[in-house]
Amino acid sequence: MTAVGIDAIEIWTGNLKMDLPGTFAPEKGEDPEKYTKGLGLNASSFPDSYEDIVTMGANAAHRLMERKGLEPDDIGRIDVATESSFDNSKPVSTYVAGCLESVYDGDFHHANKGERKFACIAGTQSLDDAYNWIRAGRNRGRGALVIATDTALYARGDAGEATQGAGAVAMYIDEDPDLVELSTHQGYGSADETDFLKPNQQFPSVDGKRSVQVYLARMREALEDYESVAGDVHPTDVSFAPFHTPFPGMVRKAAMLAYRHITRDTAIEETLAEEIGRQPRREAFDDEEAFHDAVRDYMDSLKETDRYQEWYAETIDPTLSIAREVGNWYTGSVHIARVSALKTAFEQGRDMAGEQLLVGSYGSGAQAEIHAEIVQDGWEAELEALNIDEQLAERYDMSWADYEEIHDAHNHEMDVDVEEFTTPDSEFVFDGWGRMGERKYRYVE
Amino acid sequence: MTAVGIDAIEIWTGNLKMDLPGTFAPEKGEDPEKYTKGLGLNASSFPDSYEDIVTMGANAAHRLMERKGLEPDDIGRIDVATESSFDNSKPVSTYVAGCLESVYDGDFHHANKGERKFACIAGTQSLDDAYNWIRAGRNRGRGALVIATDTALYARGDAGEATQGAGAVAMYIDEDPDLVELSTHQGYGSADETDFLKPNQQFPSVDGKRSVQVYLARMREALEDYESVAGDVHPTDVSFAPFHTPFPGMVRKAAMLAYRHITRDTAIEETLAEEIGRQPRREAFDDEEAFHDAVRDYMDSLKETDRYQEWYAETIDPTLSIAREVGNWYTGSVHIARVSALKTAFEQGRDMAGEQLLVGSYGSGAQAEIHAEIVQDGWEAELEALNIDEQLAERYDMSWADYEEIHDAHNHEMDVDVEEFTTPDSEFVFDGWGRMGERKYRYVE
Repeated sequence: MTAVGIDAIEIWTGNLKMDLPGTFAPEKGEDPEKYTKGLGLNASSFPDSYEDIVTMGANAAHRLMERKGLEPDDIGRIDVATESSFDNSKPVSTYVAGCLESVYDGDFHHANKGERKFACIAGTQSLDDAYNWIRAGRNRGRGALVIATDTALYARGDAGEATQGAGAVAMYIDEDPDLVELSTHQGYGSADETDFLKPNQQFPSVDGKRSVQVYLARMREALEDYESVAGDVHPTDVSFAPFHTPFPGMVRKAAMLAYRHITRDTAIEETLAEEIGRQPRREAFDDEEAFHDAVRDYMDSLKETDRYQEWYAETIDPTLSIAREVGNWYTGSVHIARVSALKTAFEQGRDMAGEQLLVGSYGSGAQAEIHAEIVQDGWEAELEALNIDEQLAERYDMSWADYEEIHDAHNHEMDVDVEEFTTPDSEFVFDGWGRMGERKYRYVE
Repeated sequence: MTAVGIDAIEIWTGNLKMDLPGTFAPEKGEDPEKYTKGLGLNASSFPDSYEDIVTMGANAAHRLMERKGLEPDDIGRIDVATESSFDNSKPVSTYVAGCLESVYDGDFHHANKGERKFACIAGTQSLDDAYNWIRAGRNRGRGALVIATDTALYARGDAGEATQGAGAVAMYIDEDPDLVELSTHQGYGSADETDFLKPNQQFPSVDGKRSVQVYLARMREALEDYESVAGDVHPTDVSFAPFHTPFPGMVRKAAMLAYRHITRDTAIEETLAEEIGRQPRREAFDDEEAFHDAVRDYMDSLKETDRYQEWYAETIDPTLSIAREVGNWYTGSVHIARVSALKTAFEQGRDMAGEQLLVGSYGSGAQAEIHAEIVQDGWEAELEALNIDEQLAERYDMSWADYEEIHDAHNHEMDVDVEEFTTPDSEFVFDGWGRMGERKYRYVE
């Protein structure tokens, strides 16, 4: 069976930066380590006044098409995943296609365009739709453009304000991909939950404590479901495990839970037992509370072992390097985690071809999905072409007053004009409203 | 290759009815025939105060599951298509799953839930995703539940007010389907258009004239794209052609365009030529305007021929019978057109097994999709089980004052409590808001 997967990825960050320890912490009167150590975040990205989900998505896609030498005719499907949509009927993908058509000779008139919404997991759902479309033999030799784009803003003063972010990830899915092959097997953990939602509102209502519990519960269900079809996951089989990263601290919790699960009944558990005992089993306890206390004790001990710390440093920590500098990109988050991991391996000169990634996506509301990816021979050239470090370095570092202005500028309830902080260069920009309330765009040379 | 397609369909109408000639026309001071003849509509469906996109979708799905003897474990995927969503992050499918889990022992924790948005075409896009998922071998023997649900309301006084509607269509997609097999071939016509949109608003902004032009242009592109892969469509191959039906008058225009296209260079064109001449060809004219005038003249003549009228009466008119009584259901519209056609055939005692349907879906913004379906052996039992006539007959016939109240009740900008007009019976109902602004539901025995 021909491999189907991700041929190329491009990342586009919002052009502004919030320095969390340097600007956010002093303003809030908090210890900077609350952000850098607690959440695991140094900075977050914001859209300048001429940026939005369309410009970021179109810019990532344009860079991808240019780099891979793709023409509109090569693309049979454009799906945008977002939870920052600004229209209840017209999908963002039509605006993105309109932008791209303004700079190419060809058009996307025979491409299927769509939009998916399910909190932060819709990017992965769109990836899966694209995979299925190719496997179903409907692609006519063409590939799919999948764009995950969000402006993850919270109401001012909300507890989530420090975990904001804005950016887009564009991926090209085709046969014989250069970057990673996707597995047919998938595991799902999904339930009707009220942890994070946006009922007719732009900024989310969040039950933070519940949201962490739901993330872990759904991720465990997804892992069990994945193992039921793909067989047990063993730590030594997985080179990196990119998870959805609302903030790196969340992934620290998830990683420990995952490690406990995948080492159960393995030689690793036995080796660790000499140091910290075997894992508590439910059946050995009279009540749920005693069991949970024992699990918590085990996790506290596990966290301190060299073996766990080495695994975390090798398998998880490299997935967090970009998130630490850009915050939460919602639908794009798990996809920048994948890039972070491969970027680390590339910088270390590792040979990753044939190695396995275990990818854990998540969306509040709530659903987790787990699948495997196999790194392909062309991966190094893909990583070499990334310019995310330059993009991050070039962001404008906002003062607190700048931040207050730009947050208002992106608030749909407010009608404020804000002077741009940066100068657009070779990119699509928002260009005002049309007569029916549609957003208009143009390309700045 | 095993057939993949629609195993079962259930329709759920909103419980209220607006009589267009009897109530709407007198109030507007218009000739009733403006609606019955011009638009082709007798009535439209509305949601009662305890109904919304979740209750209608869950009720259609529940009826489908009960009738087909399905349990939650049989369903590996739940996708909801809507342009009436009330949350920017949490998908409607999670609410629907929550409703269904309250009346079944099992759960949908390992089902992939999603939400698609692209005006009225997202129902068909979800159908295609489900087809692809099965063809990709990822379904593990399970089927997909696809739900198209909308409350198609316009602002009071808007030109579209007479074409409103509300209802849901639930479809079960699996291998060896009982109703129709879907074709692998698809044709797309898609462009970035500003004909109908809802920029951060519940009710649409519509450019009515442009919307008609765009519908026809995209549909023609889709037909050409379909023929490029599936071969030329010939009128005698197609038993019914269900199109997206914003109002039946729109389909009258589309049908004529389609007929002109599929008879070009055929014996039918030659036979008709004796009566009305051959079709104008672009190359025979010096300028675009003269060509378009000639086409218009040809269409005016074509419309009057017995041959065209017979084709229209056989192939198109039967697809409109339900739409005439319920109005526009947005994402559900093309799917009730399919049911209308098969219902007519069933009532006439026709043998439809093996017959072909040509299905034309459309969403503003804008995209058309065309694919073929082959009617399966089990189709009669499926049609026999439908209770749409009873549902329509049982609707409460609103007075103008009732209508004004219920429109306000469903307006997200207004906070009004309206007494229900009907009594819910064995169905899911809206049950008020939770602490995070989430909508709550319960089942009424």
